[in-house]
Amino acid sequence: MSNHVPNTTVQRLPVYLRCLVQEQSLRVPVANSVRIAEMAGTNAAQVRKDLSYLGEYGIRGIGYDVDGLVRHLTRWLGLEHVRKAAIVGYGRLGSALLGYGGFQDRGFSLAAVFDTDPEKIGTAAGSGLVVEPLADFAAAVERDALEIVVLTVPASVAQAVTDTVVAAGIKAILNFAPTKLLVPADVAVRQADVAAELQILSFHLSSGGE
Amino acid sequence: MSNHVPNTTVQRLPVYLRCLVQEQSLRVPVANSVRIAEMAGTNAAQVRKDLSYLGEYGIRGIGYDVDGLVRHLTRWLGLEHVRKAAIVGYGRLGSALLGYGGFQDRGFSLAAVFDTDPEKIGTAAGSGLVVEPLADFAAAVERDALEIVVLTVPASVAQAVTDTVVAAGIKAILNFAPTKLLVPADVAVRQADVAAELQILSFHLSSGGE
Repeated sequence: MSNHVPNTTVQRLPVYLRCLVQEQSLRVPVANSVRIAEMAGTNAAQVRKDLSYLGEYGIRGIGYDVDGLVRHLTRWLGLEHVRKAAIVGYGRLGSALLGYGGFQDRGFSLAAVFDTDPEKIGTAAGSGLVVEPLADFAAAVERDALEIVVLTVPASVAQAVTDTVVAAGIKAILNFAPTKLLVPADVAVRQADVAAELQILSFHLSSGGE
Repeated sequence: MSNHVPNTTVQRLPVYLRCLVQEQSLRVPVANSVRIAEMAGTNAAQVRKDLSYLGEYGIRGIGYDVDGLVRHLTRWLGLEHVRKAAIVGYGRLGSALLGYGGFQDRGFSLAAVFDTDPEKIGTAAGSGLVVEPLADFAAAVERDALEIVVLTVPASVAQAVTDTVVAAGIKAILNFAPTKLLVPADVAVRQADVAAELQILSFHLSSGGE
């Protein structure tokens, strides 16, 4: 149903959802596109266009029903049930993400953690999880109904580990390794690239000074 | 000079740069928009449009000179000199970022690390850095010519810490705390939101199954 939603729009949907949940927590019943744009850091025309792809038009001169829009965005983003994710690579970053604790109320549960290092396997990883051997990954996908892999391994092994998790049926990967992953067409990959974020800030530092 | 470059274009520039540096390392002299788009995960028309904002048009039927484009993107992104960044908040995430090591060749140096916890202050943070008290932040900005703050503090204190670093003259913040920061108009903030990345993957999992 959603193949016609542009990728750039999809990328803004979580931002809208976060902003609208905030309005909801303040018991704001209605939000217009100007207000949503202000919170989301975009412009009102973009908000209206993005939401129109979801069949959401709001009421002219009034705005969008906040509860309804939260419900619809949640459905569009496939967040009606909690999705289970696995951390693959239990280094400092994997450990930091496990300790973060802010995923549950955004629709995700970190349900398992894997590594290949014999010294790490079997140790407690927090949140009641124990580091499991990557060799057991496919069995764990079945056991825990894992849907998403958060890849926090060194770049040098990222592709090999990706091949392993894709072979086990994973269709969604958030990659923190600074390398492009080759995956089949039906596997979605998002690249987390902290250096790229810093470069965008650098652009603003440069242009702001001129 | 660059106020007319759309934000959406700015966000793709680091991706283009990363791809072109990769071509450069393979000694590819010329890359056309189709090839750049393929590497960057966008389409050729978008590549041509984005680069046209920078005055880069390539040669019809041939493409862009890779070395020249790398040089120009580097200049546009303000990356001719290494920019110094500080980690503020030395928890697991701050520690993971310090240990990452992939920033230097992207134009950044993590030059200082701060916290307010007396137990952490004075301890070695890796990379030859020692955790400094946040109270010394303003002096350190002068001392180290810090330009960017990577904010890895809990959401509950993120705004207060932001006020401190902005008062010290910082104009660019990469915020890992899951909260919106209020800053003056001349301060650029990028929000790192891992849960939002997972939600985008969730969208693809939903729509892919239909």
